[in-house]
Amino acid sequence: MTTPPPSVYDYERDGSQIYERSFAMIRAEADLTQIPHDARAVVVRMIHACGQVDLPADVVVHDQLVAAARAALESGAPIFTDAMMIASGITRKRLPADNNVVCLLRDPRVAELASTWGTTRSAAAVSLWGDRLEGAVVAIGNAPTALFHLLELIAAGGPRPAAIVGVPVGFVGSAESKLALTAFTPAIPHLVVHGRRGGSALAVSAINALAQEREI
Amino acid sequence: MTTPPPSVYDYERDGSQIYERSFAMIRAEADLTQIPHDARAVVVRMIHACGQVDLPADVVVHDQLVAAARAALESGAPIFTDAMMIASGITRKRLPADNNVVCLLRDPRVAELASTWGTTRSAAAVSLWGDRLEGAVVAIGNAPTALFHLLELIAAGGPRPAAIVGVPVGFVGSAESKLALTAFTPAIPHLVVHGRRGGSALAVSAINALAQEREI
Repeated sequence: MTTPPPSVYDYERDGSQIYERSFAMIRAEADLTQIPHDARAVVVRMIHACGQVDLPADVVVHDQLVAAARAALESGAPIFTDAMMIASGITRKRLPADNNVVCLLRDPRVAELASTWGTTRSAAAVSLWGDRLEGAVVAIGNAPTALFHLLELIAAGGPRPAAIVGVPVGFVGSAESKLALTAFTPAIPHLVVHGRRGGSALAVSAINALAQEREI
Repeated sequence: MTTPPPSVYDYERDGSQIYERSFAMIRAEADLTQIPHDARAVVVRMIHACGQVDLPADVVVHDQLVAAARAALESGAPIFTDAMMIASGITRKRLPADNNVVCLLRDPRVAELASTWGTTRSAAAVSLWGDRLEGAVVAIGNAPTALFHLLELIAAGGPRPAAIVGVPVGFVGSAESKLALTAFTPAIPHLVVHGRRGGSALAVSAINALAQEREI
């Protein structure tokens, strides 16, 4: 263990260089003109996470998203998410106020609520966020049902989060849930990837970029 | 908390139905003809995780991948991975032998090794897998440097894993690392997504599919 294996391949081994060259390639190749200026670094980081420079064509960012999310995080607001992978991926040292990152999918109450309510565990877990949701930052990267349920809670007069990263992935309900978020009134500052694309990596990269302005 | 919010949107709320309809849509839309028969369910699950039915065009699956990975897991082999998100996402109840899932990125030795060796923490962590790597299943979904380092370890006579899911993502070294894996001799059973695409969700979905034949 005291020596590395002999070099066979010629590749970049400097982590900072890899980040810098990656972000430069993304800025050179991706069309970010439709993205608000203050959100471009967020979308660059999302492209970095999925390897696809065509992502911005499907991205819609509300013009208050970055300001609202960053202010909330700096004031100590928690981050609520629908997947353990997302909670795991958020880089704690980028969070400005040691913010709590909360996923309640494994809460012991979830299975019974989901069964009683006839919905998914992901959706039931959203109801457990409770009053702490007021002014919080939400990242939904897995379940369309969680995003629909969240919007239904808010529509019923429930707590309003400060910002919603809405990037559930998939084939059943995903595109529709993101259309519902962008059409919601009164609007909540949001970021979506329209269509089927989405997922934990996109949710995590968006939150990690919103947490701090510096890129690396 | 004893009642769900009133229904506003018309969406599928049955988790099993969502899975089944999703997998059926993927099988109807995706061209899986180039994928070995026993690996098609693996690729379907990967498509489910990224929302993109064009994924198979970039996927290469070694003809022994499924048999080798499944036999290793059934015999209790550990799963080594390069990212905490991947370790978090693997569904433990799908694992056939309560297999250990190991990511050593946060091992206290990693930072110094990476600095001494002039490589990334992701690559240095691979060296810490040690002899347990022999016959194990590897899932690399983040760092190209981890995959290059792994191949260099094996080329130097180190332990040989039973199977490698090689889906690092990104712009610097990612495509090259996956070409190196498919060209490696003697071949190790592998699955790659060529090009820039990859990431934690693809790595996790591949492992979750390899762990068990049943889809849901």
